[in-house]
Amino acid sequence: MTLSTQERFDLITNNLEEIIGADELKMMLESGKEINHYVGFEISGKLHIGQAVMIMQKVKDLMDAGIKVHIFLADWHSYLNDKFAGDLVLIKEVADGYFKEIFKAAILMLGGDPEKLNFITASEYYSSHPDFWLTFLEVSKNTTLSRIERSISIMGREEGAAKDFGSLAYPPMQAADIFAMNIQIAQGGIDQRKIHVIMRDTADKIKTNAPMFDGKRVKPVAIHTKLLPSLAKPAIWPIPEDMDKRELLNKGKMSKSDPNSAMFMMDDPQVIRKKIMKGFCMEKEIGYNPILEWMDMIVFARETGGITIERPDEHGGNISFADYADLQTKFENGDVHPIDVKNYLADYLINLFAPARAYFEEPSKKAMLERVEEILEIISKKKK
Amino acid sequence: MTLSTQERFDLITNNLEEIIGADELKMMLESGKEINHYVGFEISGKLHIGQAVMIMQKVKDLMDAGIKVHIFLADWHSYLNDKFAGDLVLIKEVADGYFKEIFKAAILMLGGDPEKLNFITASEYYSSHPDFWLTFLEVSKNTTLSRIERSISIMGREEGAAKDFGSLAYPPMQAADIFAMNIQIAQGGIDQRKIHVIMRDTADKIKTNAPMFDGKRVKPVAIHTKLLPSLAKPAIWPIPEDMDKRELLNKGKMSKSDPNSAMFMMDDPQVIRKKIMKGFCMEKEIGYNPILEWMDMIVFARETGGITIERPDEHGGNISFADYADLQTKFENGDVHPIDVKNYLADYLINLFAPARAYFEEPSKKAMLERVEEILEIISKKKK
Repeated sequence: MTLSTQERFDLITNNLEEIIGADELKMMLESGKEINHYVGFEISGKLHIGQAVMIMQKVKDLMDAGIKVHIFLADWHSYLNDKFAGDLVLIKEVADGYFKEIFKAAILMLGGDPEKLNFITASEYYSSHPDFWLTFLEVSKNTTLSRIERSISIMGREEGAAKDFGSLAYPPMQAADIFAMNIQIAQGGIDQRKIHVIMRDTADKIKTNAPMFDGKRVKPVAIHTKLLPSLAKPAIWPIPEDMDKRELLNKGKMSKSDPNSAMFMMDDPQVIRKKIMKGFCMEKEIGYNPILEWMDMIVFARETGGITIERPDEHGGNISFADYADLQTKFENGDVHPIDVKNYLADYLINLFAPARAYFEEPSKKAMLERVEEILEIISKKKK
Repeated sequence: MTLSTQERFDLITNNLEEIIGADELKMMLESGKEINHYVGFEISGKLHIGQAVMIMQKVKDLMDAGIKVHIFLADWHSYLNDKFAGDLVLIKEVADGYFKEIFKAAILMLGGDPEKLNFITASEYYSSHPDFWLTFLEVSKNTTLSRIERSISIMGREEGAAKDFGSLAYPPMQAADIFAMNIQIAQGGIDQRKIHVIMRDTADKIKTNAPMFDGKRVKPVAIHTKLLPSLAKPAIWPIPEDMDKRELLNKGKMSKSDPNSAMFMMDDPQVIRKKIMKGFCMEKEIGYNPILEWMDMIVFARETGGITIERPDEHGGNISFADYADLQTKFENGDVHPIDVKNYLADYLINLFAPARAYFEEPSKKAMLERVEEILEIISKKKK
C-alpha cells in the first residue's frame, strides 16, 4: 500500500511539539527520493520510557512514512559527560550491546520492524569521516558564542555549569553530525530546538559537507517531540498563582538520576505499577498533573478512537473518553478518580512494554541487561 | 662532537623571552631519549622575516641540540581564518610546495640541514589520527570558557572579535595538537603563552593521548621567542609620558597585511634596503626604536662577539660595539647616526638571506614563489 505525499507528511508531523522546515519536508517527500532521518542518544544508562515511547514512536511513524531512520549512538559525547564513570570501553560495550537491542525491542513493541533500524556509532563515524571535524569548525566559525551559550542553558544545564568549554562544543558537534551524515530530518525532544536552529542557520554557510538533497542545497528539517514530565510532586505545592504550571511541568522532565521521577522501559510490571501509583495526581487538578500528561502523550496519542476505563459498578461503572479534552473535563468535575486513571495507565504501560520484555527474555539479551545493571551498581557504589 | 646536557640546555634556551618547564626539559635531556619539538604555522602568504629569523633560528638551535624538530603546517586553521580566500585546495598546494621549501631555505641560510626538518600537515595528521579530536574535547572539557577567551585576546585579536565560536576552538586544538603528536617541546612567539599555559594545565587531566616521555607522564615544555616589532612609525608620536613604550613596541608586531610594516624573507635586496631606510629610527631615541630592536634581536643575537660599523673617516670612521647595551649608549649619545645603523642592518639582512635567495633560484622553487605571488595578487584584486 503506497501512501500519498500528504499521508506521509501527516505521519511524520503528528503529535509533534514542533516542526521547523515543513516546506522543505513537503518538497523532499514530493521528490520521491530517499530521505535520511536521525535521532541521537547518549549512552547513559537504561532507556527510560520518555525515550522509549515519545522518541521511538516518532521513529516508528517515520519508518511507516518510508523514511530511512538512523539511531546515532553518541559514545564520545557520553564519555565527555562522564557517563559510565567516563570509561570509554564500558560505554562502547553498552552501546554495541544493550543499547542496540533495547531500541530494537522498543520499535518491535511499537509494531515496527527492528531490521529497518540503522545504527551509527559516533566514534566509528568520526574515525571513518575525518572531514566531519572541518564541518564542526565551519559551524563553530559561523555561530556566535552567545548563541551557543543560550542553546546549552535550555538543555537542562544552568548557565553557570556551562563554564567548562567542552559543553560548549556539543551544539556545533551536533549540527555537524547532521550535515556530515547527510541527514534530512533531525529528530529530538523540544529541548533540542535551539541547537537545531543553530544547525538551520549555518546550513547555508558551510562548505564542507554542505547539506544536499537531490542535487540541491536543502536545509535539514528539525522535528521535536514533547517531553514526558516527571511523575514527582513539584518542589513547591500548591503552586503559587504567579507561577506558570505548564512551564514547571516542562522543566520537570524525567531525570534518570532521580529514581522516583524516572521509569525505565524494562522495569518489572510491579515496579511500573508502584511508580504510577506513587505519581503526583491530585483529585480534580488538571493544571499540574503529570499522570494526566502521560495519558495525553502516551495513551491518547495512540488511542485516537478514545478509551474506556473499566470500573466495578460500585465505583461508578465503566466510563469512556472520546479524547484527552474529554478526560480533562471529567477529571476536573470529579467524574473519574485518580486511582481509576492510575490503574488504567499502569495496565496500559505493562501491556505496551510486554513485547519488549519478551524480546529481552532471550538469554544473550537478558545477559546484556544484567550486565548494564551490574555496571551501574558498581559505579553507583564507587561514588558513595 | 657530543654536547653536554648543560650545553644542550643552553642552546635550547638562549635568546628566549621565556621557557615554561625548565625542570622538565633538564630531566628529559638527562634521559638521553629522543625529544620531539614542534612549531606551527598558518599557511598565510609569504614568510616574513620575523618567522624566518626569530622562529627558525630557534629551530636551528634545537636541531644543534639534538632535538627532533617538526614544522606543523596548519592548513585547516588557515582555511578557517580565510587565508587564500578560504580555498583549501590552494592552501594545500601552497603548504606542500612553497611553504616546505621556504622553511628549508630558512634553515639552510641559518646554517642548518634542511633534511633534518620534519613536516606535518594538519589535515593529513587529523585524517590519520581520528582520536586527536577526543583529546581536543578532553582539553575543552578541562578548560573554562573565560580562560579560552583570555588566551585569544592576547593573540592580536580583540575581545569583541572573538565572538565567532570558531576562533575559540583554536586554543584547545593547539593544546591537543601538542598532546596527540607526542610533542615534548612546543615553540611559539610570546603571543602563544596563554595557550601553552592552558596546554600545561590540562596535561595532567587528559586520558586520550596523555603526554608521555620515557614511560612517565611529563608536561610538554613551552618555549617562547620574542616578537620582531613593526618598523613603522607609531600611530601617536611623540609617545605621551603616561604610555609604556615597550608595551607599544610589543603590540606593534609585524603585520603581513601592512606592506610598510612587514619584510618578507624573499624580498629583493633593493626592497630590503628601501624598507630598512623607511624604518622608524629617531636620532638618540632608544625607548621606541624598532631599528635598534632589530639590531638586538637579529644582529646581536647572532654576533655574540660584537660588531663594527664601517664608516668613511669624514663621518667619524669605523665604530665598534661590544654588545647591544653598548650600541644603545652610543646611539643615545649621538656617537652613531640612524643612517649608519640602517646601512649596517640592510647589508646584514641582505647577506643573511643570500643563501635562501640562491636556493630559490632553482627553477621549480622559483615557480612556486611566483605561483604564490600570483595567487596573492588575484585574491587581493578580488577583494577590491
